[in-house]
Amino acid sequence: MATTHDDGGPRLQEESEGTVLERIFPLLPGGPGVLLGPGDDAAILATGASVIATTDSMVRGRDWRDDWSTGHDVGVKLVAQNVADVAAMGGVTTGLLVSLMADPELAVAWVEDFARGVGEGARRAGCAVLGGDLSSAPPGVVVVSITALGDLQGRPPVLRSGARVGDLVAVCGSLGWSGAGLSTYAVPPPWMSASPSDEARGGALALVRGYHRAPRPPWEAGPSAADAGATAMLDLSDGLMRDGGRIAKGSGVTLALDGDLLREHFLRSPITEVVELEEAWRQVLSGGEEHSLLATFPEGAVPQDVDLPWVVIGRCVTPDGDGPTVTVDGIRPAVMGWDHFDPA
Amino acid sequence: MATTHDDGGPRLQEESEGTVLERIFPLLPGGPGVLLGPGDDAAILATGASVIATTDSMVRGRDWRDDWSTGHDVGVKLVAQNVADVAAMGGVTTGLLVSLMADPELAVAWVEDFARGVGEGARRAGCAVLGGDLSSAPPGVVVVSITALGDLQGRPPVLRSGARVGDLVAVCGSLGWSGAGLSTYAVPPPWMSASPSDEARGGALALVRGYHRAPRPPWEAGPSAADAGATAMLDLSDGLMRDGGRIAKGSGVTLALDGDLLREHFLRSPITEVVELEEAWRQVLSGGEEHSLLATFPEGAVPQDVDLPWVVIGRCVTPDGDGPTVTVDGIRPAVMGWDHFDPA
Repeated sequence: MATTHDDGGPRLQEESEGTVLERIFPLLPGGPGVLLGPGDDAAILATGASVIATTDSMVRGRDWRDDWSTGHDVGVKLVAQNVADVAAMGGVTTGLLVSLMADPELAVAWVEDFARGVGEGARRAGCAVLGGDLSSAPPGVVVVSITALGDLQGRPPVLRSGARVGDLVAVCGSLGWSGAGLSTYAVPPPWMSASPSDEARGGALALVRGYHRAPRPPWEAGPSAADAGATAMLDLSDGLMRDGGRIAKGSGVTLALDGDLLREHFLRSPITEVVELEEAWRQVLSGGEEHSLLATFPEGAVPQDVDLPWVVIGRCVTPDGDGPTVTVDGIRPAVMGWDHFDPA
Repeated sequence: MATTHDDGGPRLQEESEGTVLERIFPLLPGGPGVLLGPGDDAAILATGASVIATTDSMVRGRDWRDDWSTGHDVGVKLVAQNVADVAAMGGVTTGLLVSLMADPELAVAWVEDFARGVGEGARRAGCAVLGGDLSSAPPGVVVVSITALGDLQGRPPVLRSGARVGDLVAVCGSLGWSGAGLSTYAVPPPWMSASPSDEARGGALALVRGYHRAPRPPWEAGPSAADAGATAMLDLSDGLMRDGGRIAKGSGVTLALDGDLLREHFLRSPITEVVELEEAWRQVLSGGEEHSLLATFPEGAVPQDVDLPWVVIGRCVTPDGDGPTVTVDGIRPAVMGWDHFDPA
């Protein structure tokens, strides 16, 4: 695993900015929409009548730890977070701007590994890396940031405010994997010391930890959901309850989720193999950084795609006197999701 | 001056992300091109057939110090850096995405002050703030980042590679102010202790320090220079010598600068009042973060605009055997500019 300080290879401060960029650029894909790529004051990307724009960052020590995640993991995850945001509007990502602000002691090998991860993510998303920024930071600091630009391809955007009473609520992708993975890093499960070679559990552990480090959410389902008539959509960054609440408040409906459907489809392997059932359920409801898509559809409009399956988990109903919210079997669960400055 | 830890007011960690965003949004301008502003997964901006995109970041302790710069200064400077990059392509900035990655101990007042600075810069540039990202960072870390999106308004972009032998080299804006300002912060000039109330020098000091903290480069001159026929253009981030070298190498010409013209127009007040003549000259040639525009024009095409004056400082000539470079009176100066990881 590439670490920051001790790989024995060159550090950023031993190379000029130009040399580092020359090493990175070949790792990053271009594309036909790129009218001007890296190397000038700015890049130029072909667009339709509008451009989707979003940005997301990761900070070492907060959003990843070097003893858990490689630079490649961080690159893949940062792309996934941004591409999922564009997909949740119903768009496809066309270009990325990538920034790295780093302690000059950072190993160049980490930067190359990160760039390979960004490149892999960008290739999977079918988008180009347009350019970026490389800056020095104080000792120990490594911050990476991506801005994704995207194209609606003529579709109207799918907002958080379009859900209507009677619409079905559906999820495309997993729930709770990233949170369960993080949970096993933070508190290694007891079975690991009792039976460390447990193969089935070992495989499940690798899955959830791998998903936490480098998620590959089904962002391809975003544009097709928009085409199918999704009335509201977002990607699950902060957990089903908190993000569902955003659609609820934005749309003025309550998302009435069905506990049996949630348990049947999501409270299962791999998460139930690596953490206790109660913790697994908590992660299904409130685990963050999953980046699966949550959407609402009129009855009969939920996409029937075997490769990108949407699972119906509930229905939009008229809010009760306490206002729009998310319920599971009619009750507001106590668990909530992640807030950057208020992680209560 | 707003500082990070000791203003006595609330810190980021005492507010929810939503509350902080609610305080910031009213400080930031929107605009008619914003089809969807902050609050959803991504923003949507109206475009022509293409979009210009660039990103730039600032890191506390590297790019600013809290005892010199306010949050407002940092916001103004970060906008200026990005808008100047768009202007140097011949474009106008239409939208900004703003990221803040901060120690939860950071004072909310600093964040509001920063947002006011971003808002002021955005209003001056006539662009909207589309959205952004707010993330927590380890103790002491504050990183801010902007991605600027811009419109060529039908112009072809002005690259670094279009300068031709015979073209005139011209600058719009100041040279060396930011570097001289920084220099006076790093090493307070002897006259400050000898005659601290020297009014003329005090005014000059305020000018160069103010420019270093919150530069206001003449980015409006970018599109009009493109219209006038600029063959190459960039904004001076890393100093006249280093950035001039980028046009030289990109275009395969040598920028033969005239020392008398440089001294006449740029080696003067305020920089000569606050630092020694030798240091002032060094800053004219290699001071960074000025963000003035450097461009090349065919003979007779240099814009004659009294409000945004372009000063001719040399001519593009055929490179000698050592290849494309920048010379002053035929000699390659020893001083160079700023490299993030190789500040030699």
